Formats: sequence, structure tokens, C-alpha cells
Amino acid sequence: MELLKTNGNLIKLFAPKLKKGGSLYLFGKPDCIDFIDYRPFLKLNSKIVWYQPSRLAQGRKNYTNNYDIICYFSKGEPKTFNLDDIRVPQLVELEHRRRCENVPSVKNGKWGKTRFNNKGKNPGDVWGDIKQLTYKSKELVSRNVLNTIQKPEKLIERIVKASSNIGEVVLDPFIGVGTTAVVCQKLNRKFIGFEQNIDFITMANKRLEELENEQKYSFSFY
Amino acid sequence: MELLKTNGNLIKLFAPKLKKGGSLYLFGKPDCIDFIDYRPFLKLNSKIVWYQPSRLAQGRKNYTNNYDIICYFSKGEPKTFNLDDIRVPQLVELEHRRRCENVPSVKNGKWGKTRFNNKGKNPGDVWGDIKQLTYKSKELVSRNVLNTIQKPEKLIERIVKASSNIGEVVLDPFIGVGTTAVVCQKLNRKFIGFEQNIDFITMANKRLEELENEQKYSFSFY
Repeated sequence: MELLKTNGNLIKLFAPKLKKGGSLYLFGKPDCIDFIDYRPFLKLNSKIVWYQPSRLAQGRKNYTNNYDIICYFSKGEPKTFNLDDIRVPQLVELEHRRRCENVPSVKNGKWGKTRFNNKGKNPGDVWGDIKQLTYKSKELVSRNVLNTIQKPEKLIERIVKASSNIGEVVLDPFIGVGTTAVVCQKLNRKFIGFEQNIDFITMANKRLEELENEQKYSFSFY
Repeated sequence: MELLKTNGNLIKLFAPKLKKGGSLYLFGKPDCIDFIDYRPFLKLNSKIVWYQPSRLAQGRKNYTNNYDIICYFSKGEPKTFNLDDIRVPQLVELEHRRRCENVPSVKNGKWGKTRFNNKGKNPGDVWGDIKQLTYKSKELVSRNVLNTIQKPEKLIERIVKASSNIGEVVLDPFIGVGTTAVVCQKLNRKFIGFEQNIDFITMANKRLEELENEQKYSFSFY
């Protein structure tokens, strides 16, 4: 319940800072916005399910929780949704979709112009293709941030790509070890981050320096 | 918003009819219980994500919605949760789990006694293994009930097996073409169903008769 109050306050606090058409993503467990009336502040577009199929935890008294929710809000209608930058491979669905396109009701009905897109498909609102970091991940900056603090770059990249354009500003009020900063640096977005833990800030700055050196190095080839 | 009011009323109406420890499952879209304060009536144990990876719909302005929510409530602590009856194969996670068990922190830490279960694993709260019916499904009783009314038997079976025992009563207040009745008949549960549409009742009764004939027939072999 404390967390719910916190999330409600976050929405109230950050919504006025957001530009019209801007996006806000809130991470949490499945119940993270239950009972919070966000409607006076923001529009909820999606509750994205970030799904981890291979958790060890195996409860005996309930269906084991295997996912987190990412609430995708916007201030009014979203100004930016760069679908083409976040398309994912069709993979197993390819054959299914090809078959669907030949169904008479699809062919001749109101979906007659629906065609399989070779550039890939909308990632949808269930993301099972991005694994949480493990103790083996090269990305992991410290064991202390495993499974709680550090998020995979791929996850933040999808969000930053979808909801911002090059040169725009991304704010991460709980930036931790700096994943959002690193992603923004790579994708040519500006960023602002807040963090209370001084060790995390040190790690974040180290990551940014390393990235800058890599970027310099790779430029020298061209 | 009308639907939210309906769902709130359903919870208020059915919770008093439920025995202590009994379970209630509510189907809906991701926002189906937003803003409903169910807490005076029921305990929410899980929000199960029923995931359809291969939908044709491909929105361009949002992450395409690929899932429904099944809210698993109970009246107080659930009396029945038959995990062993709903275990699913380990499949792809098998190797991952075997590896995890040999991680030093798992082996010697507080998870030291966690072992891979050969009978299968908890299905978790993301169900991608049960496909929605298509126009080709043998189960489908009529094209008119496709994608909206008729649910796959496998879906209802998992729920009935997990949250009821043989001989107990299952109530489905919107029984449609009778899937819950058929499943209960197969699994030796009693059932009560309500339905307004007379055509659906006809189809449901036909399904039950056919099942009864099959069951008689199969008995004659023994």
C-alpha cells in the first residue's frame, strides 16, 4: 500500500513536468497502479507485460509471478510512437500469419488489405524476448544490482526508441547505475537523471566514460 | 467505464454467494479491474496474463494488445490450489534451470534445497500455451461465437482443476455455449450455469448430450 501511495504521488509530481504529448513509463508489479486514479493527469495507453519465463521461484499456493508491468502513459494523445524503430522479427508467427492472409474472410472482408510486413511486426504488449540480467550478463555492473536495480539496455532501448526522437530529452528520476543514460547516449537523446546512492552514480559515470571512449575509438576508423 | 461498473457490481453480487476459501475468476482486458476496490469482498491472488502471440491486429499508434487478464480472487485465503494437477512441461527452461541449480549462490545459499521438479513446473501467471480458438478449431461450436464467446476447454480445465476438487460445485454466471459445463462434466465437478441467449443454451445442451454419449460409449469398453 505504501508503494501505491508512492506511485500515485509520482504520477501527480511528474505529470505537470511532462510536455503535451510526452510519454511516461512506470515500472512495477502487476498491482502497481491498482486503485490509483491517474486519469486527471495522464492517459494509460498500455500495460506492457515484461515476461520472464525461466524464474526459479516456484510457489505452491498460487500461480508463480513471472512478469512485471510497464505502464505506458502519455499526456493527452502521444506525440511520438516510432513503430518502425522497434519492429521485431515475425519468427514463429510468420507461417501462421501467411495462412491467415489466405483465409477467405480476411482476403475479401474488411481486412483484405492487411498484409504481412517484411520489416517485422509490432512488439505487442507482452515482451518475452528481453531477458532480465543474470549473474553471467556482460552488461551487469555489480552483483549488488542484480534482479532489482539494473535493467537490460535492450528493454530501455525499446522504450526510448518508441517514445522519443533524436535530440529530445529523457528524464529518469531513479536512474540507478545509469542504464537510461547509456542508452540515450547511444541513441543520441539528451538525458537527465536523479539518484541518491553515491555508489550507483560512480558506476553510472564510469559506464558513460567507457561508452564515450568506445565511441571515440569507433569514430577513428571512419 | 460501463464495463468497470459491471465488474464492480459482479464482485459485490457474487462474493457473498462464495464459500469461505472459495475462488472467483474474472475475465477481461488489462484494465478490467482498474479503480474497482475489491478488497472489502475478495483477495486478489494473481492477475493471470492470457497471451496470444499471433494476433493479426497490428496497431501503429501503440503496442498492440496481445493479452487478456484473468483475475484470480479468493474469499480469504484460498482453500484449494491443486498445483500438481496443473503442472506444465519444463521444455525450454529445463537446461536453464539445471544450470541455475549449479550456481554457487543457489547451491549453498538459502535456495540450496530448490530442485528441478520432474513432474513439471507451476504454469506461472503468463499463459502463452493455450491458443484462442480459430475458425479451424474442432472445438468451435459455431462461427458466431468465435473470438468472443467460446473459450478453449484447455483454459477452463486449468482453472477448474486448480481451484476445485471432485464433487464440488462450479458456478458460471455467463456460461455461453457451455464450455464450463462440458469441462465440469469431464472432470467430475457439479456445475450451475446462467445464460440469456436461447441459441447458446441449445448449443450447450447439445455439447453435453454428445459428451454423455461419448462417456457411455467409452464405459461400454470396460
